[in-house]
Amino acid sequence: MPRTQTARLMDGTGLARRILETTTATAADIRRRTGSSPCLATVLVGEDPASVTYVRMKRARCEKAGIESRHVALPASVSTAGLVETITALSEDPTVHGILLQHPVGPHIDERAAFEAIAPAKDVDGVTMHSFAAMGFGLPGFVSCTPGGIMRLLDEYDVDLTGKHAVVVGRSAILGKPAGLLLLGRDATVTYCHSRTADLPSIVRQADVLIAAVGKPRFIAGADIKPGAVVIDAGYNAGNVGDVDFDTALDRASLITPVPGGVGPMTIAVLLAQTVEAATRQLGVG
Amino acid sequence: MPRTQTARLMDGTGLARRILETTTATAADIRRRTGSSPCLATVLVGEDPASVTYVRMKRARCEKAGIESRHVALPASVSTAGLVETITALSEDPTVHGILLQHPVGPHIDERAAFEAIAPAKDVDGVTMHSFAAMGFGLPGFVSCTPGGIMRLLDEYDVDLTGKHAVVVGRSAILGKPAGLLLLGRDATVTYCHSRTADLPSIVRQADVLIAAVGKPRFIAGADIKPGAVVIDAGYNAGNVGDVDFDTALDRASLITPVPGGVGPMTIAVLLAQTVEAATRQLGVG
Repeated sequence: MPRTQTARLMDGTGLARRILETTTATAADIRRRTGSSPCLATVLVGEDPASVTYVRMKRARCEKAGIESRHVALPASVSTAGLVETITALSEDPTVHGILLQHPVGPHIDERAAFEAIAPAKDVDGVTMHSFAAMGFGLPGFVSCTPGGIMRLLDEYDVDLTGKHAVVVGRSAILGKPAGLLLLGRDATVTYCHSRTADLPSIVRQADVLIAAVGKPRFIAGADIKPGAVVIDAGYNAGNVGDVDFDTALDRASLITPVPGGVGPMTIAVLLAQTVEAATRQLGVG
Repeated sequence: MPRTQTARLMDGTGLARRILETTTATAADIRRRTGSSPCLATVLVGEDPASVTYVRMKRARCEKAGIESRHVALPASVSTAGLVETITALSEDPTVHGILLQHPVGPHIDERAAFEAIAPAKDVDGVTMHSFAAMGFGLPGFVSCTPGGIMRLLDEYDVDLTGKHAVVVGRSAILGKPAGLLLLGRDATVTYCHSRTADLPSIVRQADVLIAAVGKPRFIAGADIKPGAVVIDAGYNAGNVGDVDFDTALDRASLITPVPGGVGPMTIAVLLAQTVEAATRQLGVG
């Protein structure tokens, strides 16, 4: 088959860099005007190597952007009550502007109770019930970072969403579900697919905008992508492989995010941007 | 065209009656065991005739079920702060178990602020951000009454939702959006359509389960209904007309709700059932 089209790449690395430049400048401005730096509290339960690495990366990126990070490491044995108490104290601490609870937190902990101890004004990771409903109702609030990054990418590439059919594959609480609500809020027709969906390819083929957020390597075949579709691959699987079969999708999509370098860098950029936004409000320098 | 099929009617009137019988019995049991009746506070702002009628109907149904109703009528001129204060007092009043704010409340009032003054434990109408997120995350909580009624109807008629394509036409905060989240929580593939959807008939035709919640008389043509589909008409328009063209849909659907007598009676039944559930918890008689 002749190559009819080669998709344009959506450069998440470049957009994330620009967001972080703005964020860094705003953080410096806050420091100059108030004498205080924006501060993100990171809470880690246990020593899961992947979680340790994620938190370290986030803290390093904070430092580079002039955002203070305050790290709270709790033993894997901490109780739900102990974790809630720690997070509640951070919610009440006026020198902390954003709170990130690294998850998973371990099966013996009520993760929802822990998340709900984060004050909505400090929920810069967009994990609370309040933030979820705000996304659903189009109210002011912080968004879940990966869906927020996806929306910024779509806007950066001037993707018109009104009336378009957006198909979200995956329905996690911090990715698929909020992504669908944000797309609905932008007047897309939204379909949620998941592991129980009866005929996934028939629905994927209808997608003007496809959000793959399922965590299975090359799960979506290029042949199932509608010609001209915008493909957002939020999957990140072993070996730098996304949820979409990139090579075959390249010939069908009009725009596509590479893995890595697409959605990945956006998540942390949104986290830091929201932290600085939280600090701006809490310090009254808006 | 020969009639290939005539849909079975989903009898909301009968199911609502059975729910109300159980609710009445539970209310009597609570009264016997605690000396207190379950109590629903109804808050009405202004004198909009339709709102006055709705509240009167709800209160009459409460009385019949042995649920005390405490009515608070506020002038149309009440401020957001005044309304929030009233609702907060009801949230803190241990003799009130459920709170219903009749909406709309008037354009000068921040309706969301008023809703959020309802304690989640008393949000028997399912309008708070907490209740919305609970529906989205499959957590315990009260559901919006009409979507809750729809789910009970689907269960009553043993409609298997797993992997089925449910199409929700309409995306209001108390009907379309929560209905979609509840269906997603039951493993349906869910599509949200609305006024900006590009080609509505092509999506409606895919629906194994169709939820019409758009408020436009006979907006959905029978010819667009997939043969064998389950059709839930949550529309209620002037002249007892639903959102679906009932007569033509009857030949295509396998199950369909009539208007009236389908979804309509379910809403109030769920409201009262949730009020008694709230009282059961708050009075510790669970």
